Amino acid sequence: MNLLNEKSTVEVQAIRAKKAGKVLSLLSTEDKNHALYAMAQRLETEFEFILAANEKDLQAVREKGFNEAYIDRLALSKKRVFEFSDGLRQVAVLEDPTGKIQLSKRLENGLQVSKISVPLGVIGMIYEARPNVTVDATGLALKSGNAIILKGGSSAINSNRAIVEVIHRSLSDSKIPKEAVQFIDSTNREDSQALFTMREHIDVLIPRGGGSLIHEVVSNASVPVLETGVGNCHLYIDSDANAAMALKILVNAKTDRPAVCNAIETVIVHRDWLTKHKMEFINTLSNHKISVHGDEHTLAEIPDATLANGEDWANEYLNLHIAMKVVRHVDEAIEHIELYGTKHSEAIITENDETADYFMQRVDAAALYHNASTRFTDGGALGFGAEIGISTQKLHARGPMGLDALTTVKFIMNGNGQIR
Amino acid sequence: MNLLNEKSTVEVQAIRAKKAGKVLSLLSTEDKNHALYAMAQRLETEFEFILAANEKDLQAVREKGFNEAYIDRLALSKKRVFEFSDGLRQVAVLEDPTGKIQLSKRLENGLQVSKISVPLGVIGMIYEARPNVTVDATGLALKSGNAIILKGGSSAINSNRAIVEVIHRSLSDSKIPKEAVQFIDSTNREDSQALFTMREHIDVLIPRGGGSLIHEVVSNASVPVLETGVGNCHLYIDSDANAAMALKILVNAKTDRPAVCNAIETVIVHRDWLTKHKMEFINTLSNHKISVHGDEHTLAEIPDATLANGEDWANEYLNLHIAMKVVRHVDEAIEHIELYGTKHSEAIITENDETADYFMQRVDAAALYHNASTRFTDGGALGFGAEIGISTQKLHARGPMGLDALTTVKFIMNGNGQIR
Repeated sequence: MNLLNEKSTVEVQAIRAKKAGKVLSLLSTEDKNHALYAMAQRLETEFEFILAANEKDLQAVREKGFNEAYIDRLALSKKRVFEFSDGLRQVAVLEDPTGKIQLSKRLENGLQVSKISVPLGVIGMIYEARPNVTVDATGLALKSGNAIILKGGSSAINSNRAIVEVIHRSLSDSKIPKEAVQFIDSTNREDSQALFTMREHIDVLIPRGGGSLIHEVVSNASVPVLETGVGNCHLYIDSDANAAMALKILVNAKTDRPAVCNAIETVIVHRDWLTKHKMEFINTLSNHKISVHGDEHTLAEIPDATLANGEDWANEYLNLHIAMKVVRHVDEAIEHIELYGTKHSEAIITENDETADYFMQRVDAAALYHNASTRFTDGGALGFGAEIGISTQKLHARGPMGLDALTTVKFIMNGNGQIR
Repeated sequence: MNLLNEKSTVEVQAIRAKKAGKVLSLLSTEDKNHALYAMAQRLETEFEFILAANEKDLQAVREKGFNEAYIDRLALSKKRVFEFSDGLRQVAVLEDPTGKIQLSKRLENGLQVSKISVPLGVIGMIYEARPNVTVDATGLALKSGNAIILKGGSSAINSNRAIVEVIHRSLSDSKIPKEAVQFIDSTNREDSQALFTMREHIDVLIPRGGGSLIHEVVSNASVPVLETGVGNCHLYIDSDANAAMALKILVNAKTDRPAVCNAIETVIVHRDWLTKHKMEFINTLSNHKISVHGDEHTLAEIPDATLANGEDWANEYLNLHIAMKVVRHVDEAIEHIELYGTKHSEAIITENDETADYFMQRVDAAALYHNASTRFTDGGALGFGAEIGISTQKLHARGPMGLDALTTVKFIMNGNGQIR
């Protein structure tokens, strides 16, 4: 007991998560699925308890004058809670990512070598005020045999606490120890930062939210990080682009769901194409209420455009604003993307396959599109099943990350006395 | 030029590496292999130039009184330089890890989705005074289409500078820009640390060397790290171990090459086995000049043992010293490994398959051995080809890492106007 008393509450939670994770890692797929179904059921029977807690959070943010989009992401309803439990049932039917034999060979000396997928151990989830992440991330972690430590945004603390209480009650009917789901019941920034350096207890940190949250974690964590979701995505309309296709894709990629990471934030237009299709382009923007922040070339062509500054090029607007740059060559487009892109999703519209290949070979991003909307960078849209997030890093996983991203491997060697 | 003048020399080098890496990433396998053969050839014709530089390094460390093992790793000879060039030719014949189609599917809407392996970009290699790493790492980086920044140990600076000069001369006959191999010509610690945070220019850092070097990089880098090679490996001799096999494996794992990371540093012995086989055990240790640092139970049984302190349990001796702990149950062995292991290689010797499975399911390490020596954790021994190192981390790659570990993927989407 003395030993534990010397550690911070968060560290004790991390140690408990690790211990519970070991028990969890040995459970069968059936046992894990049973727990997910029990969680889903319990969330539905106790939805009013969760909504009451959510109401407290909503009152507080309304008093603080937060904007509607923020409140919308925080707000729960019976329908939303039931969507959470549907999500858990969908995860239950997915294939178990652990225990897969990735390689099996017998060396000449008789040593049997197997490479088998196993859980990572403990996942630290740091996210903004979106209670849905509490349920989604817990479901994916448990299915892949991992314990999870949840640190959600302060504005959602009552909702998250209630959800975790319900999850804990549901786990008491399962073989998963409830310590496998740890909730950091604090709005203290230091308690979040404490997770950054717990290399002994936490195997991976997954920040989910806006750019500044992710930047803070990536810059300060010594625990390995899975970086997700910041998308400053570009659409390049080449001189050889089909105009109808270009405009259809521009509208879809910008306006279908402007607030998501695979929406575009900048359109780069070849000058020759713009000269030919100026009126259609202007009308399309205006019909869809898209506001343009452009360079000087843009201002000379688009009447309502305002002058873009450096921030516009780097900005994730996540609304109907768009930055615009006019170029004379595909190389200028590639350079601009190199400078400002976040390596998420980048698209080129052209009828010229050589130009398309040139672009796709040189642009460094998780997903590159020729004549299609960036909106397809999504595990669901690509038919990969539930996703933890979209990785914009190069190591471990890139692009839509499924349950496999929450596993590592063990080499298991069986011998009868082999020495070297 | 003004822009460049404001940046540090190291940053300018990193920017040049990135630019050269882009050219390199577009080259064919043949072009890359051609460059590797040219490098091998040139190292052989200019070996005397390299040995002369090496002599300067050796003089300096001799004057400083460094130990023989250190000097041995630094010392070059005609034979060793020719081994380097052989190594490059071996890398040339390996399969190109880039351009592999890992997934190819057409969605119902006609969008063609491909997942293709591509180079990481720029690798930052930080290593101790071992000139062989300069050649090995450069060969593996170039083969996988990556630029490399080399920061070797100060004591090897003359050797490394000479090797890189020869490499640069060889590259002038190839399509690989010589800027793809950057040498930090400095013994300044800050120039090494400058690499830690260059997330814009460097895609991955690979520290190679002792525990303190790796710890410094892992704790301070915001650039993603591939952690390699610290091996505090354990051999657990169970109550049901075959004595002859246990002793044969103990001797092999400790004495075959004590200085490598897959050698064992601690033997954990079940009390009942020790009681039965005490004399054979003592004689084996003494015949192989193995010195024991043990717990109190060990001291009661092994006449020449000295008392182990906390440091012994965590120490990589890398020589003929060994730590020893006597236990009453496999769980004690697992707990000890959990506390002090570095997740590299761990072995159990037992005739009881249930105990072996129990151990292998619960111990968290890259490689787990039942009745075999830990010495097999090695890309060559396992038949995987040349390796960058042995990963002791869980993300991206675990265990022996081949050329594939130096790649990431791109999703390439080809459409004809698909929107969501």
